[in-house]
Amino acid sequence: MSTLKNEAICSMDTDFAQWYTDVCRKAELMDYSSVKGFIIYRPYGYAIWENIRECLDKKFKETGHENVYMPMLIPTSLLQKEADHVEGFAPECAVVTKGGLDDLEEPLVIRPTSETLFCEHYAKVVNSYRDLPKKYNQWCSVVRWEKTTRPFLRGSEFLWQEGHTIHASEEEAREETLRMLDIYKTTCKDLLALPMVTGLKTEKEKFAGAEATYTIEALMHDGKALQSGTSHYFGQGFAKAFDMKFLNKENKQEYVYQTSWGVSTRLIGAVIMVHGDDNGLVLPPRVAPTQVVIVPIRQNVDGVLDKAYEIEKTLKEAGLRVKVDASDKSPGWKFSEAEMRGIPLRIEIGPKDIEEGKCVIAKRNDGVKEKYNLDDNLVANINTLLDKMHNEMYDKALKHLNEHMTRVNTMEEFVDVLENKTGFVRAPWCGDTECELKIKEQTTATSRCITDQEVHGEKCICCGKEAKKIVNFAKSY
Amino acid sequence: MSTLKNEAICSMDTDFAQWYTDVCRKAELMDYSSVKGFIIYRPYGYAIWENIRECLDKKFKETGHENVYMPMLIPTSLLQKEADHVEGFAPECAVVTKGGLDDLEEPLVIRPTSETLFCEHYAKVVNSYRDLPKKYNQWCSVVRWEKTTRPFLRGSEFLWQEGHTIHASEEEAREETLRMLDIYKTTCKDLLALPMVTGLKTEKEKFAGAEATYTIEALMHDGKALQSGTSHYFGQGFAKAFDMKFLNKENKQEYVYQTSWGVSTRLIGAVIMVHGDDNGLVLPPRVAPTQVVIVPIRQNVDGVLDKAYEIEKTLKEAGLRVKVDASDKSPGWKFSEAEMRGIPLRIEIGPKDIEEGKCVIAKRNDGVKEKYNLDDNLVANINTLLDKMHNEMYDKALKHLNEHMTRVNTMEEFVDVLENKTGFVRAPWCGDTECELKIKEQTTATSRCITDQEVHGEKCICCGKEAKKIVNFAKSY
Repeated sequence: MSTLKNEAICSMDTDFAQWYTDVCRKAELMDYSSVKGFIIYRPYGYAIWENIRECLDKKFKETGHENVYMPMLIPTSLLQKEADHVEGFAPECAVVTKGGLDDLEEPLVIRPTSETLFCEHYAKVVNSYRDLPKKYNQWCSVVRWEKTTRPFLRGSEFLWQEGHTIHASEEEAREETLRMLDIYKTTCKDLLALPMVTGLKTEKEKFAGAEATYTIEALMHDGKALQSGTSHYFGQGFAKAFDMKFLNKENKQEYVYQTSWGVSTRLIGAVIMVHGDDNGLVLPPRVAPTQVVIVPIRQNVDGVLDKAYEIEKTLKEAGLRVKVDASDKSPGWKFSEAEMRGIPLRIEIGPKDIEEGKCVIAKRNDGVKEKYNLDDNLVANINTLLDKMHNEMYDKALKHLNEHMTRVNTMEEFVDVLENKTGFVRAPWCGDTECELKIKEQTTATSRCITDQEVHGEKCICCGKEAKKIVNFAKSY
Repeated sequence: MSTLKNEAICSMDTDFAQWYTDVCRKAELMDYSSVKGFIIYRPYGYAIWENIRECLDKKFKETGHENVYMPMLIPTSLLQKEADHVEGFAPECAVVTKGGLDDLEEPLVIRPTSETLFCEHYAKVVNSYRDLPKKYNQWCSVVRWEKTTRPFLRGSEFLWQEGHTIHASEEEAREETLRMLDIYKTTCKDLLALPMVTGLKTEKEKFAGAEATYTIEALMHDGKALQSGTSHYFGQGFAKAFDMKFLNKENKQEYVYQTSWGVSTRLIGAVIMVHGDDNGLVLPPRVAPTQVVIVPIRQNVDGVLDKAYEIEKTLKEAGLRVKVDASDKSPGWKFSEAEMRGIPLRIEIGPKDIEEGKCVIAKRNDGVKEKYNLDDNLVANINTLLDKMHNEMYDKALKHLNEHMTRVNTMEEFVDVLENKTGFVRAPWCGDTECELKIKEQTTATSRCITDQEVHGEKCICCGKEAKKIVNFAKSY
């Protein structure tokens, strides 16, 4: 805590990037390590990840997925089995060339992702349609060597989950791809109060080796998009490269149909950049490691601390995550520390309140303060406040998203919106990668995802040819 | 499942090592990867680890520990800061020399353990006694290059937890060291039905960099010991090497007092080798991923499967981990598969049983079968059976341990016990490492831990000098 005190953070509008880094540090979410691009997840930041993981893991298991753990190291020869895949990842790999005191005959890469390991294993253990589907998931960290890194958004090591499933039919695999996309979207909404724009990635933007990549994209406070999760349909591409065959019901050998899907600690970055304000972090109540902080006023007065702990006990027993700040700092300091950490509710309790049998509860998202009775309804009132706060945060983020979702038909409009209004720009596109590249070159905006909007004779904003799709473009992280 | 069928496993007494490997494979706990010493934790094996992790993590948090995540890679210069530590681990390190497409200026090692990273971070964030204690824990995998490897027992990569704490006083740090040792011991007893021998390691056997290493040692079915967890008191050694200072209450700079402690997936190996039998795995009920398997007899007969699912629903609602095996295999096959996987209880239910309103329940640990009524007492009866089974398994293991704990006074007795009776041999020792080495050389037995037994003029079994300690020796994994 002591690190916080007299340090202020940069204002969002002055320098959003600086504000972001300040919040990450001052809220004690992370710290830098001595290896560039490798961060330390401090207790408060890691606790947020634990809550995300617990929520997703439950949903994965409810939908029939099983957790496994694959080796951290991949032989280069294995990584090379699928052409697009190795082309996509080889340039980002950390390579182990020495083991113990010996040079290795074959260099090993630290997993940038584990498709190849899952494929090799599936090929060994699957024989018949009776062995299908196999729906495995892994929680681990992966390493991708990055030149420019930012906490949670882009790092050389990050924590994630990677699901890898194989199925006996294309239909079933495509269903799985969309099911997991939906689980991501609803979890972002219900746990993180994050509205997501979803859709297909273009050929250029899809995952190395995938037939189809679906994405969830969030809009940050500064009007930039953040890819927050992806779900891929692989068809039989990897199956053929890794010889993943099974005996189907017609007793014929057939290649399996495959998916993979993942979200990472990037979601923490999204939470910070969507909900945060100039006082620091604002955490959605359901993911907050501490949901309620109790700040005693004049805590040296007899009975004040006792009352604070009594309230803490009551809330804990009701399943709330609550803490009393009994440190020797002034209430003012405690308030600002709790605000910096984005703790959803702050209970203030002093001698006068106790006399009145009341306490003050302040909401972090809008600063609204109200008096509540210290009675049997306190827990119910707090749960109501937490749900209210969650909904307010989601609605505010959704409003921001909708206000920054602009449909354009010309390059001029496109550039104008990007430069002034920012956010997502929906534009007709002919489907050629060439135009996609030109748009990126001219505007630094990339295609985030293809919308499901129908085309009615619109022309590509780049080449003027018949448009095939309406695409969400945006500057992005 | 199909992999199991007609494959038998080697008998324990014919070849214990082969039996062990067979069980690991046939129970589908793990599989080998294409990198030597790196195994795949399959769903059934990983689920056991998840249950161990959940139980320990809860106890860590209840005792005020917080989870963090440190980088996977350590600069060689950082690893070298503490002399004993680097000497202990450098020979086992996997070294990353390339990142992306470039050679690294400084090679990075994949963490063999994370002391150095925690020390570097603590040195940065701790200033005053107000910041102490810091009690962090990390769940991750570590890499130690091993020449000879065995699933769960010794691998080049394994999953573990590593706790690292710093304190303002020696007393508090020593208390922490013993508290965590006790948490390990009680968890092994209450969750894994494993009795442990605990004590101090000798100078020769203690952790690289530690002042004192405490160990929990289990006795395997074959009479060999398995080190199953350790808790270390570091004193101020690392603190001085990493300049971990704090301003104490007397306003003076002082070095922190440190501990670390860990258990790994080795515990799964202990469970297999202590409880298993010639039919495969025998899992303690509280850690078993599936506690009850329901096998329908003549499942094509109307109502049989419905009844099986009805029972499954009832048990699930009571919080039990239960599965119906409705596959198209014969009951006999299902029985042996369930036995191979060590599922604690098997419910057999057929048309006749349903008529009688009864079912047969078989206990995996002793094969005892009994009829039970399909009534409101079923859940209670099953919970009683599971607890009974847990206690029987613990008592059996404890009996085996006690029967293989022999006190000797001469080298002749020592050798005789080791060769015939096996197990732990308690012998007086002068305290010299030289004698310890000679004993190892002559018998291949190592000192496992120092007992708290008092010495009454006994002589060292090796040199005949005055004995200082009574030590538990054993052949070990």
